[in-house]
Amino acid sequence: MNKKPLILVVNDDGITAPGIRTLIAVMNQIGDVVVVAPDSPQSGMGHAVTINETLYCNKVKIDDGPQQEYKSTGTPADCVKLAVSEILDRKPDLCVSGINHGSNSSINVIYSGTMSAAVEAGVEGIPAIGFSLLDYSWNANFEPLKKYIKKIALNVLENSLPDGVVLNVNFPNNATFEGVKVCRQARANWVEEFDRRTNPQGRVYYWLTGKFVNMDKGEDTDEWALANNYISIVPVQFDLTAHYFIPKLNNWDL
Amino acid sequence: MNKKPLILVVNDDGITAPGIRTLIAVMNQIGDVVVVAPDSPQSGMGHAVTINETLYCNKVKIDDGPQQEYKSTGTPADCVKLAVSEILDRKPDLCVSGINHGSNSSINVIYSGTMSAAVEAGVEGIPAIGFSLLDYSWNANFEPLKKYIKKIALNVLENSLPDGVVLNVNFPNNATFEGVKVCRQARANWVEEFDRRTNPQGRVYYWLTGKFVNMDKGEDTDEWALANNYISIVPVQFDLTAHYFIPKLNNWDL
Repeated sequence: MNKKPLILVVNDDGITAPGIRTLIAVMNQIGDVVVVAPDSPQSGMGHAVTINETLYCNKVKIDDGPQQEYKSTGTPADCVKLAVSEILDRKPDLCVSGINHGSNSSINVIYSGTMSAAVEAGVEGIPAIGFSLLDYSWNANFEPLKKYIKKIALNVLENSLPDGVVLNVNFPNNATFEGVKVCRQARANWVEEFDRRTNPQGRVYYWLTGKFVNMDKGEDTDEWALANNYISIVPVQFDLTAHYFIPKLNNWDL
Repeated sequence: MNKKPLILVVNDDGITAPGIRTLIAVMNQIGDVVVVAPDSPQSGMGHAVTINETLYCNKVKIDDGPQQEYKSTGTPADCVKLAVSEILDRKPDLCVSGINHGSNSSINVIYSGTMSAAVEAGVEGIPAIGFSLLDYSWNANFEPLKKYIKKIALNVLENSLPDGVVLNVNFPNNATFEGVKVCRQARANWVEEFDRRTNPQGRVYYWLTGKFVNMDKGEDTDEWALANNYISIVPVQFDLTAHYFIPKLNNWDL
C-alpha cells in the first residue's frame, strides 16, 4: 500500500476504556487513526440507533497519540454513521471495534455493541473487525493481544473481506495463547435469572442476570476454541436469511 | 392440537399501539394470549438488553379482550426474557411480535426492535414471527392483514420452525395483496444524512436521518416482493456465521 490506510476505531465501553486505548495504540502503528466512540458505556446496546433523541459529537484529546478523536452521545452504530457521514472526508480502509471488556462469542454477538459497530461498518461497505477479551475487568491485561490484533488487521487490509462479511475476534483470558482458530458461532444462549427486588416505595423491580449455557458440543465453534485457549475468529454476516429453509417454506400452505 | 396454544405477544411501538392491538385480536382467535410489551416506543432499539438499569413490569388492562397484559420499562428483547423467566409458567407455543408501524425488510431487520423480540424468542427455543406493515402512521389500516397473519401463525403452530429460524413478515402498504412470497433479505443499506442543527446555547447537535438504498436487483428479495405488492416472508437465522468464508479464512496467515 502506498499511502497509509485510514482506520476508524470505535467501541462500546466508552472512549476512555483501556480496551479502546490499546486498540488505538496498535492501529497507530498501521495507519492514520480516527476515533469516534461513545462518551459513556453502551454495553448490551445491540444494533440500537438513536432516532428519537439528538446526538452530540465533539472533538476531544484523551492522550498523546497522533490519532484524532471524537466522543459522541450516541450508540456504537451511531458512532460509525457519524464518522462516515459527518467526520471523515473519505471512506475508511478499515474499521476496528473494541477491544471489548468481556466476551462477544457465540450468541453474545447479537447483543453486542462492539459487534454492532463492526456490522454497521460492514453494511456501509467498510472492512471491519470486532475485538473482545474474555475479561470484564477494567484493568484487564491487553498487552498480550497486541501482536495478534496487528496481524489480523494487516491481513484484512491485505486480503480485504467479501461484501457482507465482518470478523468477530475473541481472546481467551490468558497471557499466552495456543494460536488462532477460524470458527463458527456456537449455538448457545443465556438462561435468565432475574434478580427480583423491592424498592424503598414497595414497588417490585428487576435486574437482568443470567447463566450462559452452551448446548453445542462441536469442536469447530468459538466456545470450544476459547475454552481450549485459542483466539477465535468467526466470519459474521448480516444477511440473516436462512437460505436452506426457503424451499421448505415454499411448501407451506400460505 | 388438543389444548389451546399459549401465545406471547410483544412489540416495539409500545403496548397501546394500534399494531399490537390488531395482533392481539387475531391471536385471541387462536390461543391463550399473554402480552408483555414496552410501556413506550422502542423503535430502532436493535437487540438491546437492559443491564445497567432496573426494570419494572406491571399487569395492566388496556382493552376488553381475554388476554393478560403486562407493560415493562425494558426493551423488546427484555420483554421476552421477562415473559419467559418471570411471567409465564410454561414455555409459549408461539411468540408473535408487532405489528410494527413501518418496514422491517432487508437490512432494517438488524435495527428492528420488533425482530429482536422474535429473534430473542427463537434463541430461547420458541417458534416466533415478526410482523410489520410498510406504513409508519399511527392510524394505518391493519384490517386487511388479519387473515394472512392468522394463516401464517397457524402454519407455524402446525409445522413448527427449525431450531435457529424465525420468520420476518412484511406487508406492503395496500388494502389488497398479490399473495405471499418467501424471499431472501435484499442487500440494501441506509445512506445517512445527518440533520445538523445548533441548539439555543450555540452547541451543534444532529438528528439521524437517511435515505434507503437498495442495490440488490434480485427478484427473489423481500424488497422486490414488497415493491410488487406481495407479502414478504424471510426465514431469519441468528447463527451469523458466514460459513462459506471459513475455508478461505483458513488460508490466511494468522
